[in-house]
Amino acid sequence: MRIHGQHTRTLVQMGATLRLLDQRALPFRVTWYVSNSVAETAFAIRDMVVRGAGAIGATGAAGVAQAAALANDDTLFQDVDHAAQTLAATRPTAQNLFWGIAQVRDAVRAHLGDPAAARAAALAAAQAVADDDAESCRRLGEHGAVLIGQGARVATHCNAGWLAFVDWGSALSPVYTAHRAGRAPHVWVDETRPRGQGARLTAFELAEEGVSHAVLPDGASGLWMRRGLVDLAIVGADRIAANGDVANKVGTMLLALAAKHHGVPFYVAAPTSTIDLQTPHGDAIPIEERSPDEVAWIEGPDDAGVSRRVRFATPDAPIRNPAFDVTPASLIAGIITERGIVPATAEGIASVARGR
Amino acid sequence: MRIHGQHTRTLVQMGATLRLLDQRALPFRVTWYVSNSVAETAFAIRDMVVRGAGAIGATGAAGVAQAAALANDDTLFQDVDHAAQTLAATRPTAQNLFWGIAQVRDAVRAHLGDPAAARAAALAAAQAVADDDAESCRRLGEHGAVLIGQGARVATHCNAGWLAFVDWGSALSPVYTAHRAGRAPHVWVDETRPRGQGARLTAFELAEEGVSHAVLPDGASGLWMRRGLVDLAIVGADRIAANGDVANKVGTMLLALAAKHHGVPFYVAAPTSTIDLQTPHGDAIPIEERSPDEVAWIEGPDDAGVSRRVRFATPDAPIRNPAFDVTPASLIAGIITERGIVPATAEGIASVARGR
Repeated sequence: MRIHGQHTRTLVQMGATLRLLDQRALPFRVTWYVSNSVAETAFAIRDMVVRGAGAIGATGAAGVAQAAALANDDTLFQDVDHAAQTLAATRPTAQNLFWGIAQVRDAVRAHLGDPAAARAAALAAAQAVADDDAESCRRLGEHGAVLIGQGARVATHCNAGWLAFVDWGSALSPVYTAHRAGRAPHVWVDETRPRGQGARLTAFELAEEGVSHAVLPDGASGLWMRRGLVDLAIVGADRIAANGDVANKVGTMLLALAAKHHGVPFYVAAPTSTIDLQTPHGDAIPIEERSPDEVAWIEGPDDAGVSRRVRFATPDAPIRNPAFDVTPASLIAGIITERGIVPATAEGIASVARGR
Repeated sequence: MRIHGQHTRTLVQMGATLRLLDQRALPFRVTWYVSNSVAETAFAIRDMVVRGAGAIGATGAAGVAQAAALANDDTLFQDVDHAAQTLAATRPTAQNLFWGIAQVRDAVRAHLGDPAAARAAALAAAQAVADDDAESCRRLGEHGAVLIGQGARVATHCNAGWLAFVDWGSALSPVYTAHRAGRAPHVWVDETRPRGQGARLTAFELAEEGVSHAVLPDGASGLWMRRGLVDLAIVGADRIAANGDVANKVGTMLLALAAKHHGVPFYVAAPTSTIDLQTPHGDAIPIEERSPDEVAWIEGPDDAGVSRRVRFATPDAPIRNPAFDVTPASLIAGIITERGIVPATAEGIASVARGR
């Protein structure tokens, strides 16, 4: 099976019906989630059928266009506004979601009074968000690949590859570019509790791409760096604040602290659609807290391939499940964007941010 | 159900037959592992029927006494030496194991030529190891409790409570002492991948003791400290080197780095039997690497209570599974021992180490 590139993408059909690669089932089964309503699209984002900064940005955009496609002429504009609100309320942290939704909503508003034109503009804007995401990720991979020398060993956390975007990915795009250039990088993959995006999605992607890798428990990065086994770290981002602080999957800050302590350069890779100039610093980024069940129970196939869930935590144990953390700019060696690599400072961020 | 204290201990019968609380089944089922041979005792340590620094020290000691109890008079001394070697080869990192084994082997050797006296001395020595462990843990709890003020919020990693020792525990003993003194501490419990000693054993212990707590994914400690939710961290130790470096469950170093970054004091609690003056620094401590299956598969009860295992990682993904890491002395605010709290320095360690 091959999913990458020309073959398929995470979001494979737009319009009144969306077809999404169901990431809840990966890597064990390749199935597709079909959404015939904005409510189903919102569910897909909330339940992590589709997850990852760019992928939910493109799906949010497609969801607004879906509202336009489904709406009657006389309610189109209010349906689109309502859809934008519904979709924006699914998950609070990733900036790309709000950016993608705004692109399509603004395109629709440019055609007030002309529902047919608004519908066409919505679909074109949603397609542009997806194309922009894929192209930005491809380009940031070219910029970031210069950091990856022959045989470099790269630590990463969560999944920030093509499953998390429309194509290429953020953290993994430089790895793929270096790999295709023959530099044979190796990736240390944090398994990424609780949902295992590293163990499940990044390991799957890297195997599909033929990139050397191994999964580690989340706690192992400190030891691995102490042993000199890591040359650099690259992670993705769900939101980059104006001062260079970064929200990303919970555990990212610990990887950054380990990197700082051991002198390993720690990079964040993200398209500039992830930058939020309205958020002055990381502590102003809303951090989603998800269901304790994600920590308490683990789903997966048993030895016979039957999907089941088993309890991981003590029954009735109180559990907190923050989905993201904040890595302060001071721990970040640079931000890899489609416009180049910039320092994690207010000046660096401003130099590549898109005007809003 | 109540397990603590006078009711039962992790090691409840010594002699030719050992009875051990089977920690693989906790917290879901309370079952007992019965060993009728040194080979079965060695398996119990290797497979983590019994785990935790002090608990495997006491079990190793009991295993040597078991060899003496089972041996014929004419092969007793060589059987005991062989048992000591077999038991010492089960797990490489925890110093208490080697210390416990040596106590009993040395007691036997003091009675060369008198098998009956040697047998009695072995059992007495194994009992002394267990009693010493329980008493040391009780005392270090009294020393450590002074660090825990009213309502203090304590972060910990893995399980270093009474399940990991003969009684009381190391990291949790100060918590229990403060709790009984009415100071209502709260414990943030790292779930501790891959085997979930935090989510399974520490959460179970704390619930049994009535101590307020919540489980967190391993990656969350940085965010929690950034939010000001942690007053201090206390972890156990599997080995303390002569310079104050500490080997403990993988992930401990990341908690220590987060604590250092946020100005949260980070303590290690251990009986002095955990100190190894023969190991000059942490990088000389052998770090056990366990089966990738521990990361790839997760065992637990399903919704109906039937024990099953499900796959967590991508099939065939390469996996590394180091069981411990090394926290450098520079990150440690102090070592809590039964002889008092000392700095994590060569002088501090030497001041409390037992002569060897």
